[in-house]
Amino acid sequence: MSCRADAERYREMVAQALDAYLREPRIPARLQEAMAYSLGSGGKLLRPCLALASCEMLGGRAADALPIACGLEMIHTYSLIHDDLPAMDDDDYRRGKPSNHKVFGEGMAVLAGDGLLSYAFETMLAALAAHGGDVGYLCAVQAVAEGAGVGGMVAGQAVDLEAEREAKVDADTLEYIHAHKTGAMIKAAVVAGAHIAHADAAQLSAIGAFGSLYGLLFQITDDVLDVSGSFAGMGKTLGKDQAAHKLTYVSLYGLEAARRVAADTARRAKEALAIFGQAAEYFIELTEATLQRDH
Amino acid sequence: MSCRADAERYREMVAQALDAYLREPRIPARLQEAMAYSLGSGGKLLRPCLALASCEMLGGRAADALPIACGLEMIHTYSLIHDDLPAMDDDDYRRGKPSNHKVFGEGMAVLAGDGLLSYAFETMLAALAAHGGDVGYLCAVQAVAEGAGVGGMVAGQAVDLEAEREAKVDADTLEYIHAHKTGAMIKAAVVAGAHIAHADAAQLSAIGAFGSLYGLLFQITDDVLDVSGSFAGMGKTLGKDQAAHKLTYVSLYGLEAARRVAADTARRAKEALAIFGQAAEYFIELTEATLQRDH
Repeated sequence: MSCRADAERYREMVAQALDAYLREPRIPARLQEAMAYSLGSGGKLLRPCLALASCEMLGGRAADALPIACGLEMIHTYSLIHDDLPAMDDDDYRRGKPSNHKVFGEGMAVLAGDGLLSYAFETMLAALAAHGGDVGYLCAVQAVAEGAGVGGMVAGQAVDLEAEREAKVDADTLEYIHAHKTGAMIKAAVVAGAHIAHADAAQLSAIGAFGSLYGLLFQITDDVLDVSGSFAGMGKTLGKDQAAHKLTYVSLYGLEAARRVAADTARRAKEALAIFGQAAEYFIELTEATLQRDH
Repeated sequence: MSCRADAERYREMVAQALDAYLREPRIPARLQEAMAYSLGSGGKLLRPCLALASCEMLGGRAADALPIACGLEMIHTYSLIHDDLPAMDDDDYRRGKPSNHKVFGEGMAVLAGDGLLSYAFETMLAALAAHGGDVGYLCAVQAVAEGAGVGGMVAGQAVDLEAEREAKVDADTLEYIHAHKTGAMIKAAVVAGAHIAHADAAQLSAIGAFGSLYGLLFQITDDVLDVSGSFAGMGKTLGKDQAAHKLTYVSLYGLEAARRVAADTARRAKEALAIFGQAAEYFIELTEATLQRDH
């Protein structure tokens, strides 16, 4: 089956599961509405797809990884809602529609984010319990927690916020920010999927290395897209306060050098997949498509 | 040992453990500072103490419950930081010092809250792994997740936000708000402690009932304190936008009726402890001290 067909199947599974999770009657109506507004809003579901693909590649069942995949998307979505707040990036639009706080107000947007983050863990823990506390499953939940947390995504956001405030940045800081803000959750997705399939140490190491490199590739091509804008609808709108001094691979290295780094990163990402042979087809095709998305 | 001596011992354990958790070197310096500013700032550590006391009452070791206790305090603290934001309660002060966003800025305050919530789960999951995925321990982490989440604390905050915005409230709404915003985490604390001690169903039911009633008592006496102000330093400063139309048991029922409800709630809370006999001394004394705190 091709990468595209798998991705379609994964996205359908995830969209249906997210929908079902949101129909939880304990969630107050307005909060539910605010969470659903951003969670279901036309995202690519990249992180959930990565988790499901990684699990399947290693012989696991995608259905087992589904609650973790949904947790990843809830966490990713909370980070976007909080990131868009006036106190952060101050973005009025996200994915072509008004950002969460423009529709529900800042207070409810903060709570929608808090709710999604909490619900991600509630969802993943319930799945862990349904798997009888299985150690591989627990490692998967831990991988997500670490990727999302104060040594991962939140760390990247904090350093980004400080760097933009001080309007100073060097190559090391930029790398730290992207490896944590974007990379950590992408890596967590593939590692978590592998844990659910009870991958061995060599497999975990290889898929982890791929995750880091693919995260970097994703960020560089995202930066290139922001400039070249050749892939309509993919690039996010720059925040009011941000357009002038946004830190990107392009602003730091220039467009051509950024594209060269992207190509080199894609090559290394595919190399990391070598031990999986043919089974890695999904990830190889995804890497090539990501590299090509600004052309 | 008296309730007071136990509480002192618990608080010392928790303060030391929180300190150690915050020294995690992966946390960026400024984020760490913002998290530590609110986490260590003279709170009563009520929820952690409840978890440790519940665990010990049921024959468990307080040390085993310590990571859960710390997780509870991290989650409670994140909720205060986000609650104080201008978009929420807009409080400039908390526990007698400038609130988090007044010191670190709103963006960093959002991230400090996100960081504490994430770190709570990372901490609890690491402890669960150290306990080999023990089912009782997993139930404890789930109890905290449910108490903190979209069917618990966040639900209460969302309904509170809506109610204050619409400036309409009735007795049912007030009860919902307090049972969720304050009560859910207090109940989660005692239930989680009991799970770690592998309590049986009857014990879990009794300590859960106590938790709900004690949470209610805590909230009513808090409301009474806000009015009578007789216990210096305990009452929180009302938010700028909030003083005029804050929803409380006192504003709804009047001071004397609120005190009667508190006394009745304290009586029922102590009754719920009957099955534990003498072992419940800590909770009995705590209930009496809480009832008396506005005198």
